[in-house]
Amino acid sequence: VSPTGTPGTSFHPEIDLIEQIASLVTVRPGVEIGIGDDAAVLSGDPVLVMTQDLLVEDVHFRLSTTDMTSLGHKALAVNVSDIAAMGATPVAVLVGLGLPSGRHDAVAELYRGMEAVADEHGCTIAGGDVTDAPVLTLSVSVIGRMEAGVAPVLRSGARPGDAVCVTGMLGASVAGLLVLEDPPLGDDLSVPGREALQGAHLRPTARVAAGAALARLCVHALLDCSDGLALDLLRMATASGVSIELDLGLVPQAPGVPEVAAAAGHDAATLAATGGEDYELIVALHPREMARCAAALGDLALTRVGTVLDGPIGLSVVRDAKPVELPRLGWEHGA
Amino acid sequence: VSPTGTPGTSFHPEIDLIEQIASLVTVRPGVEIGIGDDAAVLSGDPVLVMTQDLLVEDVHFRLSTTDMTSLGHKALAVNVSDIAAMGATPVAVLVGLGLPSGRHDAVAELYRGMEAVADEHGCTIAGGDVTDAPVLTLSVSVIGRMEAGVAPVLRSGARPGDAVCVTGMLGASVAGLLVLEDPPLGDDLSVPGREALQGAHLRPTARVAAGAALARLCVHALLDCSDGLALDLLRMATASGVSIELDLGLVPQAPGVPEVAAAAGHDAATLAATGGEDYELIVALHPREMARCAAALGDLALTRVGTVLDGPIGLSVVRDAKPVELPRLGWEHGA
Repeated sequence: VSPTGTPGTSFHPEIDLIEQIASLVTVRPGVEIGIGDDAAVLSGDPVLVMTQDLLVEDVHFRLSTTDMTSLGHKALAVNVSDIAAMGATPVAVLVGLGLPSGRHDAVAELYRGMEAVADEHGCTIAGGDVTDAPVLTLSVSVIGRMEAGVAPVLRSGARPGDAVCVTGMLGASVAGLLVLEDPPLGDDLSVPGREALQGAHLRPTARVAAGAALARLCVHALLDCSDGLALDLLRMATASGVSIELDLGLVPQAPGVPEVAAAAGHDAATLAATGGEDYELIVALHPREMARCAAALGDLALTRVGTVLDGPIGLSVVRDAKPVELPRLGWEHGA
Repeated sequence: VSPTGTPGTSFHPEIDLIEQIASLVTVRPGVEIGIGDDAAVLSGDPVLVMTQDLLVEDVHFRLSTTDMTSLGHKALAVNVSDIAAMGATPVAVLVGLGLPSGRHDAVAELYRGMEAVADEHGCTIAGGDVTDAPVLTLSVSVIGRMEAGVAPVLRSGARPGDAVCVTGMLGASVAGLLVLEDPPLGDDLSVPGREALQGAHLRPTARVAAGAALARLCVHALLDCSDGLALDLLRMATASGVSIELDLGLVPQAPGVPEVAAAAGHDAATLAATGGEDYELIVALHPREMARCAAALGDLALTRVGTVLDGPIGLSVVRDAKPVELPRLGWEHGA
């Protein structure tokens, strides 16, 4: 995991590369939406969505801070999260596994973790191959299905005047990672509190039911919070061609985040807003729809953290009504 | 590329590992066929099929014998071939690209090669991400669609009495690789002949139209010839629970294969039957259907190379009516 986020509202190198790739390919009949959202969208009824991630040892994960079962769990959960961020439900999963020589023993543990997530969401690991590779490499593809009559929700639909909300609480994953890397940082936590943070980092939960409920209620834009709330909000703002204002004081902090942030010398709200990997959903919706959406999510919190403004495309951050410059917007893996 | 084929009718280590993986996962509603065929099959109408490959530098390809555009072409073509081997037509492609640092220049060339194949088959590269990796790594997923009312053709449907046929000619890919690795082996070839063999290795063609035509005619079993005719026939025999007899003398050799085989000191028929990577289709069908199937393939040859027998599950090889022991059945990549 390497932080390569850039401050302010500038673009990310990966976004440029994805834009370059998008310019190299043609969208042909059978596909509604190609490169650029959480998942591709196929034509048809029901609408199908498709996503894929390539996860590489020492780029996306370190074996020193995870076990194989957790790694399998997370690899599938983060892809299911991309399906959830369209409002769809996962159906089938394909797995490509690259193993360094002598690590064939890892197969059963990795699949145990993936199968637990498949079971949780009622989907099937329908294809898998194994090959040699210099480092542990996981390619996970998921295909999902929208409910009949429900359109997928893109990241590009945010409109000026919308409320910007997040499901659940943020910061647990990065706090869990900090404790995994430096256990004394968790000394102020109870044992269950510490385990909850580490579990949030190692075995995140994709918000499938929440995504489907929000899509049914026709929210304007949806995105999963994978690389940090601030960075993902910048992505939503860019895709939607709007200005988004994030109020740092409104970011809901998961239990234990203030304690770990203090021990690590970080501002807790900043940590929660930039840590990433919480896999909660970020929603843009008309403010009058907030109550109805919150009710549809049941016990899962829906918290307003900002507003879509009529302004220059990008993200601005405030705290106590004053502009704030974040040291970075999030955590970027890879290119 | 490393030969790890085992002689006779014994099983491959990769087959054991895939069987182990299949035993670790549960097939849930929404999926008709999971791990084990060329592609997974989803429930629904039209039927969708899905496949994925993970390709790793120095395991599946060497940059010394390919260029980036050819590599992109082949990476997509071999996955489209798995879709063709179900009788389906590709719709959408997802690409995960792992690049060693400093190789971002490869992106445009790789995508040029993939986009050429997408254009040829009318499908869309609908998702792509790029990440760092220690060696060039490509993950390609393809989703395809069956024609309405046509069932996917599995590798497991071969029945005693069936004729076993291949489309096109075999051996061009391995002969092309031999010439790429050791150019003097092509000294007896014309320049176009040499280029045709190298092109067959670097930029194979998936038999999409042929697969769809054969599925429409309800052939019993279909498989693409990726790792060597003999090895792939063993796979068909195993999946179908039958005995298959391959007649080495019937294997159609592509132009130039005899010359390269002679120069390299190989038996040409053996080379054509075990070289792999030709991506022709292997078909089991009732002998009385052969003429109708051949007519449906137009200019593409359909050649009988063997017979499905009532006998012990596995592959036997004959030549001039005498049993033959092949030094290996094919080429296996990875595990």
